Amino acid sequence: MRFLIVNGVNLNRTGLREKGVYGTQTLDEINAEISAFCEKNGDTADFFQSNFEGEICTRIQEADGYDGVVLNAGAFTHYSYALRDAIASVDVPVIEVHMSNIAAREEFRHTSVISPVCKGTIFGFGKRGYILAVESFRL
Amino acid sequence: MRFLIVNGVNLNRTGLREKGVYGTQTLDEINAEISAFCEKNGDTADFFQSNFEGEICTRIQEADGYDGVVLNAGAFTHYSYALRDAIASVDVPVIEVHMSNIAAREEFRHTSVISPVCKGTIFGFGKRGYILAVESFRL
Amino acid sequence: MRFLIVNGVNLNRTGLREKGVYGTQTLDEINAEISAFCEKNGDTADFFQSNFEGEICTRIQEADGYDGVVLNAGAFTHYSYALRDAIASVDVPVIEVHMSNIAAREEFRHTSVISPVCKGTIFGFGKRGYILAVESFRL
Amino acid sequence: MRFLIVNGVNLNRTGLREKGVYGTQTLDEINAEISAFCEKNGDTADFFQSNFEGEICTRIQEADGYDGVVLNAGAFTHYSYALRDAIASVDVPVIEVHMSNIAAREEFRHTSVISPVCKGTIFGFGKRGYILAVESFRL
Amino acid sequence: MRFLIVNGVNLNRTGLREKGVYGTQTLDEINAEISAFCEKNGDTADFFQSNFEGEICTRIQEADGYDGVVLNAGAFTHYSYALRDAIASVDVPVIEVHMSNIAAREEFRHTSVISPVCKGTIFGFGKRGYILAVESFRL
Amino acid sequence: MRFLIVNGVNLNRTGLREKGVYGTQTLDEINAEISAFCEKNGDTADFFQSNFEGEICTRIQEADGYDGVVLNAGAFTHYSYALRDAIASVDVPVIEVHMSNIAAREEFRHTSVISPVCKGTIFGFGKRGYILAVESFRL
Amino acid sequence: MRFLIVNGVNLNRTGLREKGVYGTQTLDEINAEISAFCEKNGDTADFFQSNFEGEICTRIQEADGYDGVVLNAGAFTHYSYALRDAIASVDVPVIEVHMSNIAAREEFRHTSVISPVCKGTIFGFGKRGYILAVESFRL
Amino acid sequence: MRFLIVNGVNLNRTGLREKGVYGTQTLDEINAEISAFCEKNGDTADFFQSNFEGEICTRIQEADGYDGVVLNAGAFTHYSYALRDAIASVDVPVIEVHMSNIAAREEFRHTSVISPVCKGTIFGFGKRGYILAVESFRL
Amino acid sequence: MRFLIVNGVNLNRTGLREKGVYGTQTLDEINAEISAFCEKNGDTADFFQSNFEGEICTRIQEADGYDGVVLNAGAFTHYSYALRDAIASVDVPVIEVHMSNIAAREEFRHTSVISPVCKGTIFGFGKRGYILAVESFRL
Amino acid sequence: MRFLIVNGVNLNRTGLREKGVYGTQTLDEINAEISAFCEKNGDTADFFQSNFEGEICTRIQEADGYDGVVLNAGAFTHYSYALRDAIASVDVPVIEVHMSNIAAREEFRHTSVISPVCKGTIFGFGKRGYILAVESFRL
Amino acid sequence: MRFLIVNGVNLNRTGLREKGVYGTQTLDEINAEISAFCEKNGDTADFFQSNFEGEICTRIQEADGYDGVVLNAGAFTHYSYALRDAIASVDVPVIEVHMSNIAAREEFRHTSVISPVCKGTIFGFGKRGYILAVESFRL
Amino acid sequence: MRFLIVNGVNLNRTGLREKGVYGTQTLDEINAEISAFCEKNGDTADFFQSNFEGEICTRIQEADGYDGVVLNAGAFTHYSYALRDAIASVDVPVIEVHMSNIAAREEFRHTSVISPVCKGTIFGFGKRGYILAVESFRL
Repeated sequence: MRFLIVNGVNLNRTGLREKGVYGTQTLDEINAEISAFCEKNGDTADFFQSNFEGEICTRIQEADGYDGVVLNAGAFTHYSYALRDAIASVDVPVIEVHMSNIAAREEFRHTSVISPVCKGTIFGFGKRGYILAVESFRL
Repeated sequence: MRFLIVNGVNLNRTGLREKGVYGTQTLDEINAEISAFCEKNGDTADFFQSNFEGEICTRIQEADGYDGVVLNAGAFTHYSYALRDAIASVDVPVIEVHMSNIAAREEFRHTSVISPVCKGTIFGFGKRGYILAVESFRL
Repeated sequence: MRFLIVNGVNLNRTGLREKGVYGTQTLDEINAEISAFCEKNGDTADFFQSNFEGEICTRIQEADGYDGVVLNAGAFTHYSYALRDAIASVDVPVIEVHMSNIAAREEFRHTSVISPVCKGTIFGFGKRGYILAVESFRL
Repeated sequence: MRFLIVNGVNLNRTGLREKGVYGTQTLDEINAEISAFCEKNGDTADFFQSNFEGEICTRIQEADGYDGVVLNAGAFTHYSYALRDAIASVDVPVIEVHMSNIAAREEFRHTSVISPVCKGTIFGFGKRGYILAVESFRL
Repeated sequence: MRFLIVNGVNLNRTGLREKGVYGTQTLDEINAEISAFCEKNGDTADFFQSNFEGEICTRIQEADGYDGVVLNAGAFTHYSYALRDAIASVDVPVIEVHMSNIAAREEFRHTSVISPVCKGTIFGFGKRGYILAVESFRL
Repeated sequence: MRFLIVNGVNLNRTGLREKGVYGTQTLDEINAEISAFCEKNGDTADFFQSNFEGEICTRIQEADGYDGVVLNAGAFTHYSYALRDAIASVDVPVIEVHMSNIAAREEFRHTSVISPVCKGTIFGFGKRGYILAVESFRL
Repeated sequence: MRFLIVNGVNLNRTGLREKGVYGTQTLDEINAEISAFCEKNGDTADFFQSNFEGEICTRIQEADGYDGVVLNAGAFTHYSYALRDAIASVDVPVIEVHMSNIAAREEFRHTSVISPVCKGTIFGFGKRGYILAVESFRL
Repeated sequence: MRFLIVNGVNLNRTGLREKGVYGTQTLDEINAEISAFCEKNGDTADFFQSNFEGEICTRIQEADGYDGVVLNAGAFTHYSYALRDAIASVDVPVIEVHMSNIAAREEFRHTSVISPVCKGTIFGFGKRGYILAVESFRL
Repeated sequence: MRFLIVNGVNLNRTGLREKGVYGTQTLDEINAEISAFCEKNGDTADFFQSNFEGEICTRIQEADGYDGVVLNAGAFTHYSYALRDAIASVDVPVIEVHMSNIAAREEFRHTSVISPVCKGTIFGFGKRGYILAVESFRL
Repeated sequence: MRFLIVNGVNLNRTGLREKGVYGTQTLDEINAEISAFCEKNGDTADFFQSNFEGEICTRIQEADGYDGVVLNAGAFTHYSYALRDAIASVDVPVIEVHMSNIAAREEFRHTSVISPVCKGTIFGFGKRGYILAVESFRL
Repeated sequence: MRFLIVNGVNLNRTGLREKGVYGTQTLDEINAEISAFCEKNGDTADFFQSNFEGEICTRIQEADGYDGVVLNAGAFTHYSYALRDAIASVDVPVIEVHMSNIAAREEFRHTSVISPVCKGTIFGFGKRGYILAVESFRL
Repeated sequence: MRFLIVNGVNLNRTGLREKGVYGTQTLDEINAEISAFCEKNGDTADFFQSNFEGEICTRIQEADGYDGVVLNAGAFTHYSYALRDAIASVDVPVIEVHMSNIAAREEFRHTSVISPVCKGTIFGFGKRGYILAVESFRL
């Protein structure tokens, strides 16, 4: 299986900022772990990160060849109806992931405008959330 | 007269996604029809589409030479105060168009943050909404 | 084609009141222009105005013979669920029209309880909105 | 006993519109059944329907001679404080009836502004709701 | 001076219903007192009552010959944007009157949709409110 | 026909508490009347009361053999989504009953979270509400 | 009769500030007119103004010897529950007056926390509102 | 590792009700799959289901010996602050699971009062959600 | 005097969980202190704790022989209208107690649905709140 | 121990107004009882009442020498963030007291803006609330 | 230039309370710094502090001789419409200052009812905010 | 010191649009003034403007070498949680600036989602706001 792992705005800062919330590993290190996990299963993972809502939308639009998309949209989660529409426009199942427990943080993080059009949602497991999302396609 | 037809995020997917809502014609095909309609009247139409809010704002900012702008902002409609300010900053009249009846869809689509600064709004007529918007400048 | 043009409460005052908002033409003059426009296309238009919600509902109920209804419900737009049910009960497509840009006026005018059951909505074009609505049936 | 059966706006369309919601019997046919049911018990029923809020209010105002009023106010249910005041101004008990389950339909139908001044409310039983309301006076 | 005294829905029941709230005098008796008060000052008063929102709107629309209108809109006060627009469309000053203290009753009576377009508002003085409203034009 | 009559929390106190609201008959006496009514029609009624939400849910889950369930959920009505799901999980039609007019009492009683999944709702008729609910299955 | 005319915070600035809203007469001049009006009727009026909520409350508490209090509380109107309780604690009827039409100004001025405990309310009549309030005790 | 799998109200109906939402497998069958999955990893799983909020709370209170709890609270999710407090009172990490995508269903299911005190949340994956939750402890 | 001390859901965990909030004494130890305090005054206290809403309601229903009930409902405080109705159905005065200052904790703890039907409320005093409640009956 | 008993706006009217709510004893008589109670325990109590928010704030600011403050802020409770800040600025524990059950009165009395910064809150016990507050410092 | 520096309720406690939020300098020390800063520029500053809303209003009313007012209203910021009206009644520009970042503190501090009538607002800079406000008049 | 001055969407239009609100100087002219001011103090300022949220976020992410950032985010202020997270991820203090008084304009401009993570906020001073922000770092 082929997976696309998409990270949204500010996630390029993972491991560099707010380490209490997001841990000390960089996004590249996390991606490397995901890659290794996939290879172990004979799967492959492509990675994409952008601080631009428009690039994320475009990347999602073109994701239909993949078996699954794992999406951590960062702050776009809470207001980007553009992203919501992009997800709704593709046939590939999209899994929403957040590293932190968004329900235990600021009020504005309690609402995800993309959850209703994602296949499923996983949050609170740190970097392991990406792995669980990938795993979900294999069960 | 010269018109600028602007389509926002995900409208490049028209005819490819959610055909029940947006029909089966692609944006290029729709644009071709608008062009033909304009030419028939001796008018010309330029076309612009982007998934980037920033590009849409910039394009609107530079639209003052046109006789009118027809804007289907897609999901930006519902939260992009940036776009609202861009529209308010130009003298050219901007007509808001949506192909679907946004009042009959999800709650979040019932609010348009750009309507108050547009000259007029037309929704629910499918691709014909663009033509009606162009026509509005001729009446 | 045969069209029914329905105007609701206080629209008999058009051209007589708040000329800054609604212009200086009377409803009869506007209707005459609509009629002329229709005849030019070989269509006919019937006209109805009432300050009574009950009469508007009844007229809509009996509109099924027409090819289309153009409805400017005036202030009924904002609270008449009776009118909404009347529109929903007929097969003829109903187009909602407002002369002013209701999104740029008082808060209460931002909500239309009839939009969800109309085929489409056009506002902000002054008297030209009626013509555009009629035109929408010909495109 | 003498009963007054009042039907509000658009209920003259019963059996003609939205048959999935309201069934295929006309209001006259339903009224005939109610009449038959009453006669069987030695009671009589008068019937009134109007699309005019003012006529419904006036009819309720004059209902004090009856043993009971059965009122399906249609869409007036959701906003007519006028009707509420009319009901509160009479001594005759008024039973509120809706054929459909208004709690399972659109959000705006979940609020009845007349329930607090009615004696009781019955909804979701189709035409049988009228019979149950009449029956309630006999128990 | 010539005044028009307009009473809305259910006020024909004044003195007959809810006497604790509205007193025991009928509307005719109250009107007679207003008339006598006006005559004493060399003024004349015309009277109009209707349970029909449409009739009230029409009557207001035609009130421009009067020096002032005194309007107790009854329950229409709380939702009739139609009436609001009718008042806004005339040049004659309209005074809003309620006999009871609407701020001390049910929640829904705390909102008047017509106050913003009336010249002034008087409530809580029983029938004397009408007299005060008339008096306001003489001060 | 066989009916199941379910009473929720605190309804074991009927006739003992707040007699102004619920009357002076005990639940057993009311049940006896329902039983007698059913027998007169050749029907049978089983009765269940519990102060435990879990027991009510379980009883509803096992009700599929009955021709109908009459449910007065007491205060569970206003917040027990558990009960709502239990009702939605069975095929037997459930009728919601309240003895008092819940729309005329405290604000929190105006919302029923179970109405949308019940077949119909009857409130305000005192103990007669149960009889009307049973009767509804015979009409 | 003896009246107490109480003016709250900032009303000492009447005639000096925002003349478009409050006119050009000073509070002393207005009070003189009220005094003259009272004397003409054989009544007397005492006057009190303070920018201190505590002083207004204390003055109201001690007003029981008067036949009536006329109170323009200024901005205290919108949040001073202290003033509300003071009014509720006396037997003398208190009339609420505002010179401007508070329903036509900023949102926060639409709510009066003292109206429910006043006998009546008069607003929108400029300085004449005080006279009407005094007059209300004589009708 | 030892896991406790807790299912709340109505989940004993899984596979028997609303199969479109929850699939056709019974809870026992799902539990057997979870058990098999655990054994494969050398782990053990205990199972608990109850329709009683009190029993769920008590079971959670006593869960501190386990390495992890997987909790599908059913409808309790949306209002049981009791359950929230029970979870907060134990040291064992609790994973919240829902089989359906609760963000795509009725409004009331969009709020989970237990998410903030759970370690993580997984929804939308059907029965696989339980497996993913168990897996999360092994990563 | 005889008192009934009732503790609701999760309060069996007092002294074992969240010691920063609730202290380190167990409920049994606290109850022993209350008992000792009562005995010193010649009073007796009975104790009841349950995690079941239904058991709490039933216990309250049967409390009429006591001189007073002291109730710490735990999380039931915030949503159990069932408990509210149980309290309202008995003549014995019920005192609401919370050990922590619920106004200084999470938003949902700021609302108590039982306060309106309790005689009085005491919170923020830790275990001493129970003693104060008992003391309140002696003053 | 030394206590400061502070009473806010309108509480100087205790025993004189709304005796149904506040009893017939004057504040001086209540204070005398508190004094006697304190002396019995070898404590002393100082008393302060003001209708001025500013005086209450100043008095609280200077209360740090006391062992405890008992504060019945009257209507200031519901909106005086000034008082809240004053309480937060001192180290002496402040106990909030209300004589009536504020949760059972008007909506606006259900919110206390000072509770979150007080040590504890006691309401519904009439004058005994002050004694309980004093007692709380001795337990 | 002459400036008036006004500090509202509880700001006399600056440096004495909540030093984490407001620093350790007293208001007098801060004022001395402001004075020195002004003198350096050849300006003079007058200072006023009060815990009384009425005194602040009065002082603002009389500020028209100054070139500018710098106002830290303390908690009055969040509810004193009286202060708002006082500011609106003078021609001198008023600058709103808060030492702390009010947007990062409790919810109630996020709303300033005086901002709309101030010339500008500065918050989050500690005591330097006063200097910046004074400086703003010189740029 | 080195400062980064960041301007968001549509601020490239400063001086060209809505001159009543933003003045007639272009952004370049304003930046030149800021530069001159900085040089006078021996500081340097870099400038960045973009209509792209993603570019602004990226620029902020890379700002950690500066002594301070001055950010006028334009309309992004009101909804860009992406920008908020970018600001929170850097150690450099960010000052929020708006030229107009956003509290005196449309409702949507009253909320800033970035204020809570900025060091301080300055608005209403026109172009001088940038200078004040720079100055704040020198005090």
